[in-house]
Amino acid sequence: MKTMTGACPSDRAKLTDVLQGLREGESVTVEGMVHALHDMGGITFLILRGPKSLLQCVLGQEMDLQGVTEECAVSVTGFPRSEPRAPGGVELTAQALEVLSRPAAPLPVPVSKKRLGLNLDTELSLRPVVLRALRERSVFRIQAGLCRSFRETLHALDFTEVHTPKIVHAGAEGGSNIFRLDYFGRKAFLAQSPQFYKQMMVGAYERVFEIAPVFRAEKHSTPRHLNEYTSMDLEMGFIRSFEDLMEIETLFLQHAMALLKREYAGDVKALGISLPDVSRVPCLRFDEAKRLAAEKYKRPIRDPYDLEPEEEFNIGRYVQEELGSEFVFVTHYPSKKRPFYAMDDPADPRFTLSFDLLFRGMEVTTGGQRIHQYQAQVDKMLSRGMHPEEFESYLMIHKAGMPPHGGLGVGLERLTARLCGLENVRHACLFPRDLSRLEP
Amino acid sequence: MKTMTGACPSDRAKLTDVLQGLREGESVTVEGMVHALHDMGGITFLILRGPKSLLQCVLGQEMDLQGVTEECAVSVTGFPRSEPRAPGGVELTAQALEVLSRPAAPLPVPVSKKRLGLNLDTELSLRPVVLRALRERSVFRIQAGLCRSFRETLHALDFTEVHTPKIVHAGAEGGSNIFRLDYFGRKAFLAQSPQFYKQMMVGAYERVFEIAPVFRAEKHSTPRHLNEYTSMDLEMGFIRSFEDLMEIETLFLQHAMALLKREYAGDVKALGISLPDVSRVPCLRFDEAKRLAAEKYKRPIRDPYDLEPEEEFNIGRYVQEELGSEFVFVTHYPSKKRPFYAMDDPADPRFTLSFDLLFRGMEVTTGGQRIHQYQAQVDKMLSRGMHPEEFESYLMIHKAGMPPHGGLGVGLERLTARLCGLENVRHACLFPRDLSRLEP
Repeated sequence: MKTMTGACPSDRAKLTDVLQGLREGESVTVEGMVHALHDMGGITFLILRGPKSLLQCVLGQEMDLQGVTEECAVSVTGFPRSEPRAPGGVELTAQALEVLSRPAAPLPVPVSKKRLGLNLDTELSLRPVVLRALRERSVFRIQAGLCRSFRETLHALDFTEVHTPKIVHAGAEGGSNIFRLDYFGRKAFLAQSPQFYKQMMVGAYERVFEIAPVFRAEKHSTPRHLNEYTSMDLEMGFIRSFEDLMEIETLFLQHAMALLKREYAGDVKALGISLPDVSRVPCLRFDEAKRLAAEKYKRPIRDPYDLEPEEEFNIGRYVQEELGSEFVFVTHYPSKKRPFYAMDDPADPRFTLSFDLLFRGMEVTTGGQRIHQYQAQVDKMLSRGMHPEEFESYLMIHKAGMPPHGGLGVGLERLTARLCGLENVRHACLFPRDLSRLEP
Repeated sequence: MKTMTGACPSDRAKLTDVLQGLREGESVTVEGMVHALHDMGGITFLILRGPKSLLQCVLGQEMDLQGVTEECAVSVTGFPRSEPRAPGGVELTAQALEVLSRPAAPLPVPVSKKRLGLNLDTELSLRPVVLRALRERSVFRIQAGLCRSFRETLHALDFTEVHTPKIVHAGAEGGSNIFRLDYFGRKAFLAQSPQFYKQMMVGAYERVFEIAPVFRAEKHSTPRHLNEYTSMDLEMGFIRSFEDLMEIETLFLQHAMALLKREYAGDVKALGISLPDVSRVPCLRFDEAKRLAAEKYKRPIRDPYDLEPEEEFNIGRYVQEELGSEFVFVTHYPSKKRPFYAMDDPADPRFTLSFDLLFRGMEVTTGGQRIHQYQAQVDKMLSRGMHPEEFESYLMIHKAGMPPHGGLGVGLERLTARLCGLENVRHACLFPRDLSRLEP
């Protein structure tokens, strides 16, 4: 009888080991997709695409190429040696080639080209194959690195990971931008955020986080909105001030930039990313930030209660020019524009103990302290014409006792897009959903 | 102007440090919820609940208790000292108490009791506060540990994390158990699995994984089904056999049990979990497993193409009794019962190169090799009366060339429930969704 013992196939070499020169002088077998093929008059250069990097293989005149083409899956055996002109600095002199599978048709787009030059719509339609292009796939490796950093930072601070439901009976953020669902004949919704649930968990775990999809039925199409996106959420108890949350986000950013520099250097280079300095992140009050940007860039303030995208852009520019920072925390947003669970500033209840983080002129995080006292929460609901009895399971925690707490949500695609210098957030989402796009 | 520097509040001690005796002899300030209060004739024992553990604080007669009750959020300052009779072996002699917040009403359920004795429905309705009970919250810490293990195992093997859309235009698993959604006037669905997307990514990243919600509109209510659950998915290219996937799952289980033993010992103990031996996991072919269980337990085979829950239970029992294993891979499921993308066994195409993993008599994983050749996939679709033109973006990858590949999906709640000895999978889901439950 067969038994599994957790033995991983080990007779094939990791491309990264080969490229680091760890296997020099040995005969190794490597596998990958054929990224590119160059016939140099008899000698063929086969560029093998591995999960993170490329390896140049040289196939001599004597070898049977077996009709190999780009996007064949192949296994190549040979001797690696240092070769400064090869991508990654190592070349493999092939002695055997095995074609494991072949494409049925040529690619609809030449993924081995440096720049694909597709328009956004074509690129998104062809995403399943466009991802094979190096720049495109690097974007989502960077994204994976950001998720790792978020988890590693929080795990070290004793946060517990949770999984909250996405099918819900009421929206946390209110408003009309919520998707409706038929749930066995009952009306249900797709969660706009894990807000209620992450707060519920603070009484049990003190500190929780979740990285998961959220859904917003926004009816406008902009380069900064997605109808489904990935939210990196945290919520924590026993805060002294909402600034504790900003410190933790700063810590996350510091860890993220260090991790990307150390472990994702190839992707950072492929995308030409300049990693921002996050040793210090300045803070500006909402009204102050608004005023400073309006004065410097001579743009009148139209909406005193919210930031228009152009204002965010100008605040980002101001902070870059005046303070040398690509990030800025904008604090104390007006109560009017923040949700019913936001805690008002006791010093001036027209404003809340809340913040957004802007990165290169765009909001990438919203956070703040929440109301933890039962009566205060009920009163604020009533003052907004809400019905507390509809929020029974949410208010259960306030009634049962909650520590002072708060949290934040980071938009993963926006953070990725700003970092990678992508103008449209759709470029930073593997398979974006927007007003007109449900496929692939 | 304020700036954030990533400084974490450090003037409060971590409960775990205090319990490990690291702060003995110092005056420390700790914070937490009041889990229990015992008046011992003047002296009061206040049991503080931290994120992972309890700390016994002794408040002398001279102290002003300020009307402190259970579920107050408090800060206690005092000297910790070793005390074998205290939970965790350390006691803090309090010198100052500060009440940070108070509940508005007593708890609807006494969370400090060892066993709550609630029926399932009441427990789920009160989940937001029931999670404050130690056993209940330990279940989801174990769950968080399983997720960590999955990620850590795969990260070490060069897997890339991905985020795939949950709003989709077609279901991957077919059938009627799919939720429908109004998407700006168009028909859309909630993803039953990330199957198509994870395969699409294999051509780019070779190895990918995702931990995310999936949705199944199952119309039956059983102790093993949820309408929304968390799936731990992986997909990898360049497999030699579907057994490579089973080896990787075994590796994950080995890492998980080691991690739980090392870092989640308190939760393992609280739940009385006996961690299974996963050094070797036996494999049985589907038809063989079926026959062996039928013969031993004298239960006739009714459905030759699938395993009934009772058969899974009996196979689990058989493997436990005869082979001493709590896990078993059941391989080579009939083609008829596997999805259209499953690769048939060339040696006998009535069966597939697929497997389920049973744990203590219940399926917790489904996996297998996929068809990677374009024509073979189109032919199988046609033979099932499907329309390949409806799967254009999926088939794009087969057309473009795909390595031999396969993957698996682990049901996180089922794995958690089996491990923790919970009879109903709802106990292993924070906020379960079933036919009648949409709240909390």
